Amino acid sequence: MTMHAAHTHEEQHFQSSETVRDVVIGMSDGLTVPFALAAGLSGAVGSTHIIVLAGLAEIAAGSIAMGLGGYLAARGDAEHFVSERQREEREIIERPKDEEDEIYTIFAEYGVTRTESESVLEALKRNPKAWVDFMMRFELGLEEPARNRATQSAIVIAFSYIAGGFIPLLPYMLLATGDAALHASVAITLAALFLFGAIKGRLTGTGTWKGALQTSLIGGVAAAVAYALAKLLSAHPL
Amino acid sequence: MTMHAAHTHEEQHFQSSETVRDVVIGMSDGLTVPFALAAGLSGAVGSTHIIVLAGLAEIAAGSIAMGLGGYLAARGDAEHFVSERQREEREIIERPKDEEDEIYTIFAEYGVTRTESESVLEALKRNPKAWVDFMMRFELGLEEPARNRATQSAIVIAFSYIAGGFIPLLPYMLLATGDAALHASVAITLAALFLFGAIKGRLTGTGTWKGALQTSLIGGVAAAVAYALAKLLSAHPL
Repeated sequence: MTMHAAHTHEEQHFQSSETVRDVVIGMSDGLTVPFALAAGLSGAVGSTHIIVLAGLAEIAAGSIAMGLGGYLAARGDAEHFVSERQREEREIIERPKDEEDEIYTIFAEYGVTRTESESVLEALKRNPKAWVDFMMRFELGLEEPARNRATQSAIVIAFSYIAGGFIPLLPYMLLATGDAALHASVAITLAALFLFGAIKGRLTGTGTWKGALQTSLIGGVAAAVAYALAKLLSAHPL
Repeated sequence: MTMHAAHTHEEQHFQSSETVRDVVIGMSDGLTVPFALAAGLSGAVGSTHIIVLAGLAEIAAGSIAMGLGGYLAARGDAEHFVSERQREEREIIERPKDEEDEIYTIFAEYGVTRTESESVLEALKRNPKAWVDFMMRFELGLEEPARNRATQSAIVIAFSYIAGGFIPLLPYMLLATGDAALHASVAITLAALFLFGAIKGRLTGTGTWKGALQTSLIGGVAAAVAYALAKLLSAHPL
C-alpha cells in the first residue's frame, strides 16, 4: 500500500465517522459540566430536586450555547471563505503581477527559485479557477467548509450534549438521598467519560487509553473542584 | 499597498491580538452559561444564595473543562504534528518515488502537468527539510502548533471564563431579592455580551455588529430557554 492510498483510506474513514465523532464530542462535554455542577451542588444542598433543576437548566444553556454557537461560527467560516475567494478572484484580474509575486514568495520559502517555479505559474495562469483555488489553499490555507455539514453537526452535538447531560443527573432523579445519588452519579459518569474518551481518542488519533484517561481526568477534576468549592462556601457563606 | 503587504499586515495584527482574542472568547463563553443557569434557577428557586452557589460551581466546572480540555487538545495537536512529521521524514527516504508521485498529484489538482511541476520537485529534492515542510503544509495541510502558546492560551481562556462568569452572578451576590437580581443580571450581562461579541466579531472578521448581535442572541436564547424550563419544572415537578 502506498502512502497515498493510506491517506485516502484515512480520510474516508474519518468522513464516515464524522457523525459518530460529533456524538462523542457533544456527549463527553455534556457529561463533564452537568456532572461537575451536580456534584458541586450536592456538597452544599440537601434537596436533590434543586440539583436536578440546576442540572437541567445547565443542560439547556450548555446545549444551546454549544449548538447555536457552533452553527453561527461555522456559518461565519463559510462566509469568510466566500468573501476571501471573491477577493482572490478580483486580485488575479486587477493586480496579476502581485499575485504572481506571491506564488514566487510561497515557493521561495521552500528553497524553490523563481526560475524553477515559473512553469507552475504559467500553468496556473492558463486556468484562472485553478489559480484562485491554489491561492486559497496555499497562500491563505483555507479549505471550503461544507455548509450543510455544519448545521447537521451543530444539531448532533447539541442533542448529544443533552443525552450526555442526563447520565450524571439520572441518579439524582431516581434516588431519594443526596449522598447515594452523588456516589451513583460519580460511578456511572466516570465510567461513561472513560468510555466516550476512549472512542474520542480513537477517532481523533490521540489514542484510545490516552483519550479515556484525559476525558475522565477533566471530568473528575472539574467535579472535585466544584464539590470542594460548594462545600467551602456553604460552610462559610459569602 | 500590494495584496501581499495587506496580508502580512493582517497576520501581524492578528498575532499581537491573540491574547485579547483568548480573553474575549473565554469571557463571552463564561458570560453565557452561568448567566443562563442563574436566570433559569431564579425562575424556580427563591434563595439567591443557592443561585450564587450553583453559578460558582458552574464557573469552576466550566473554566476547568474549557482550560484543561483546551490545553490537552492543543498538546495532542502538537504531538500529532511531530509524529506526522517523523512519518514524512521516513517516507521521503524509504519511498521517495511515492512521495514524488504525491507532489505530482497535488499539482495535477490545479491543472499543472507532470512536466510543468518537475522543476519544483527537483528543487525540493535538493533540500530534504524543505521537502518535508512542503509535504506537511501542502499534502497534509498541517501547520506547526506553538506549544507554549497553547498553555498560555488555555490559562487566559480559563481565567477569562471565570471573570466573565462573575458578571451575571454579581447582582445575585449584592441584591436581596431574586427578582431584582434577575433583572439587573439580564441587563448587565446582555450589555457585556453585546460588547464582547462586538470585539470578538471585529477580531475574528465576522464584523462588529454581527458579532455583537450573535453573541447576545446566543446568551439571550440560552437564558430564556433555561428560565422557561425551570419555571415549567417547578410548577410540574418531575
